[in-house]
Amino acid sequence: MWSQADLNFMQQAHALAKSAEGRTTPDPMVGAVLVKKCGVISVGYHGEVATPHAEAWAIEKAGGKAKGAIIYVNLEPCSHYGNNPPCVDAIIKAGIKEVVVSMKDPNPLVNGQGFRKLRRHGVKVRVGLLEKEAKQLNEVFVKYFTTKLPFVVLKSAMTIDGKIATKTGASRWVAGPASLKFAHHLRNVYDAILVGINNVLVDDPELTTRLVEKIKNPIRIILDTYARTPLKAKTLNGEARTIIAVGPAALKERLKKLQAKGAEILVLPEKKGLINLRELLKKLGQLKITSLLVEGGGEVNASFLSAKFVDKAHFIIAPKIFGGRTAKTGVEGEGVQLPAQAIKLKEVTCEKVGEDFLISGYF
Amino acid sequence: MWSQADLNFMQQAHALAKSAEGRTTPDPMVGAVLVKKCGVISVGYHGEVATPHAEAWAIEKAGGKAKGAIIYVNLEPCSHYGNNPPCVDAIIKAGIKEVVVSMKDPNPLVNGQGFRKLRRHGVKVRVGLLEKEAKQLNEVFVKYFTTKLPFVVLKSAMTIDGKIATKTGASRWVAGPASLKFAHHLRNVYDAILVGINNVLVDDPELTTRLVEKIKNPIRIILDTYARTPLKAKTLNGEARTIIAVGPAALKERLKKLQAKGAEILVLPEKKGLINLRELLKKLGQLKITSLLVEGGGEVNASFLSAKFVDKAHFIIAPKIFGGRTAKTGVEGEGVQLPAQAIKLKEVTCEKVGEDFLISGYF
Repeated sequence: MWSQADLNFMQQAHALAKSAEGRTTPDPMVGAVLVKKCGVISVGYHGEVATPHAEAWAIEKAGGKAKGAIIYVNLEPCSHYGNNPPCVDAIIKAGIKEVVVSMKDPNPLVNGQGFRKLRRHGVKVRVGLLEKEAKQLNEVFVKYFTTKLPFVVLKSAMTIDGKIATKTGASRWVAGPASLKFAHHLRNVYDAILVGINNVLVDDPELTTRLVEKIKNPIRIILDTYARTPLKAKTLNGEARTIIAVGPAALKERLKKLQAKGAEILVLPEKKGLINLRELLKKLGQLKITSLLVEGGGEVNASFLSAKFVDKAHFIIAPKIFGGRTAKTGVEGEGVQLPAQAIKLKEVTCEKVGEDFLISGYF
Repeated sequence: MWSQADLNFMQQAHALAKSAEGRTTPDPMVGAVLVKKCGVISVGYHGEVATPHAEAWAIEKAGGKAKGAIIYVNLEPCSHYGNNPPCVDAIIKAGIKEVVVSMKDPNPLVNGQGFRKLRRHGVKVRVGLLEKEAKQLNEVFVKYFTTKLPFVVLKSAMTIDGKIATKTGASRWVAGPASLKFAHHLRNVYDAILVGINNVLVDDPELTTRLVEKIKNPIRIILDTYARTPLKAKTLNGEARTIIAVGPAALKERLKKLQAKGAEILVLPEKKGLINLRELLKKLGQLKITSLLVEGGGEVNASFLSAKFVDKAHFIIAPKIFGGRTAKTGVEGEGVQLPAQAIKLKEVTCEKVGEDFLISGYF
C-alpha cells in the first residue's frame, strides 16, 4: 500500500512538523509536503498558534502548481473554523488530487470528518502511514485533546544507586552537562514545569529555560500546601508565569503577598498536607496547559507515579554512586509491597547523553 | 606495525583463550594460533589447570610443520617450570621463527624474561598487539598476580529508582530472566561469591551455578560476624565449598556445629560488628581465590565500595519502579557528603539484557 516514495515524503512531513516543537501549544505539530511527479513542489509546517496551518501554507506557496498534486501531512486536515479557515477547503479549492495522512484528528467531533468531506469532493485519501510515529509526535496534543488533562512527563536525574542527592541533601550536580542541557530542552518543549516546595526552599531554582536556544520559559508550578514559598524565591523573579498550588489552610495574608509578587494562586483540596493532584491536573487543563514536566523530589515523583498520573518518564542515570542509607532516592513515598506490583515502564529506550545514560519510557 | 592479518590471528588467539573462561583459575586464560604462509596450521588454548599450555599444545599438534611458523599468543610465553615445562623452550625447539604477543607476563619476576630468552635464540618477538584487550581478558590474573588479592566484582540488580527490594524486603524478582542468567554466568566464571548474613537469613539462597551450562559452583563466602548462619541454611547443603567469615566474638560451640556441617571458618578482626574486609581479602588471596563476586545487599556493597575494594561492577537496572522511602537501595552505608565525592565508574558500558539494562564499569 505504501511505496518508498510515500515513506520518504511522509518522513519529511514529520520532520517539518517537529521543527516547530515547543511553539504550537495548544495546537498540534503539523507538517505538509506537496508533491507532483515525484518531486516536492512546496512544503509547510504549523509554526505557531494563530499562524497559517501547514497544509494551507504549502498550498499557498505552490500557487497554481498545486493543481493535481499529492499532499503528505501527519495529521488529518481540519474541517472546521478555528484561528484558521478549514484546510480541507483549501485542499479542494487548489485541486489537490490526493491526500496522504498519518493519523486521524483525535478530536471525537472531527475524527474522520475531514476525510469524508475530501472524498465527497473527489479527492483520494489514504490514511495510516507512520501512524504510530505520528501519534508519538503529537502525544501531548492527543492526550490533552482527548482528556483535557495535561500530558505529564517525569524527569529525574539519579546516580546508579538511585540517589538524587547525597545524605546532606546536596544535589548539584548529579548528572553531567549534556544531561543538564537535555533537561533544559524539556523546559523548552513542555508548557509547564512542576516542583515541590522543598525544592524551592532547599535549592531555590529559577526553573527557566537556559543552556539551549530558548523558545520559551515553562510556566512554573509549585506544590506548596501552606504557601511557604519565600517572597525572595527565584521562582518569583518575574521571568516567567508562576502558579502556586496551595491548600485551603494557606493564610490569605500570605497569598496576597505572593500575588503581589506576581504569583497566580490555585487553592485546591488537600489531604494529609498534600495537594490533590487530580484536581490540580484538571485545573491546569482548564488553563490550557497541555503538558507538564514534573521535576520533583522523591516524594512528589512518588505521588504522581503511584496515582498513575505520569504518561512518560525520562530517567537520567549518572555513572556514579552516592551511597547513603538516608540519602533521598528518585522515587520515595510509600512504595509497593511486592515486586510484582512494581510500576513498569513500557517501550523503554536507553541512550547515552554525554557521560550519562537516559532511560525513557511510557506508563 | 600491525597488519590486518596480525589483527585477525590475534583476535582468534583471544577468542580461544576466552573459550576456557572460568576453567583456568588461578592460571591465566591463554590462546595460541600457529600460522605459516598466512594460513593457520594449528591452534591451542589453556583449558584447565595442570593441562598443557596453549603454545605447547598448538606446537605439539602442528608437529614438524611448526618449523618456520609464526605463533600468536595473548600472553608472554612462560620461561619457568610450573605445572608445565617452559613454553619458550618448546617454541625454540620447534623452530618457530616469530612470536607475536599481546602483553607481558605481569609477574614482576618473569616480566619480559620469556622475550629475552626467545630473542637470544634468534626468534623474532613483537609485543603489544591488542594489549588493552588482553589485559582486560586476564584482568583477574593480572590483579591477583600483582597484588595477591582477589579481583573483586560487584553485581547488583536494582529498579530504576535504585531499590533492591520493596519496602517489605521482598526481592524476588527485581530483574528479568535474562539478567538472572547473566548473574549465574558470573557465578560460573568467578572463583567465589560473597553475601552478608542478612541475605542468608532473609532469602536463604543456594549461591550455586544454575540456569547456564555449568562449569563449576563458586566458593560460597558469608560475612557472618556472630556466626548466625542457620545450620539448615541452603549454603550448607554441601553442593559447594562454604567459607564463613566470623569475628572473634563468635561462639566456639557454634563454630564447631557449622564446621560439622562442612563449613570452613575464618576468624577475622571485627569493628562495630563488621568483619575487616582487608583482612578477609588477604586471607582469600592466600587461599588462592583469585576472584570474588560480591552479591551483597546495600550495606555490604557500601562497605566494599567505600573502602575502594571493588575492581569492576555490573549494575542491572530493571525498567520498573518500587518506590518507598524505607525500601533498601543497592548501595547504602554512610554515603558521601558531596556530589563531587561520588564514587565514579570508568570505562562505562550499557547493554540491553532481556528487558533490563546492564551498566558495567571499573573503579
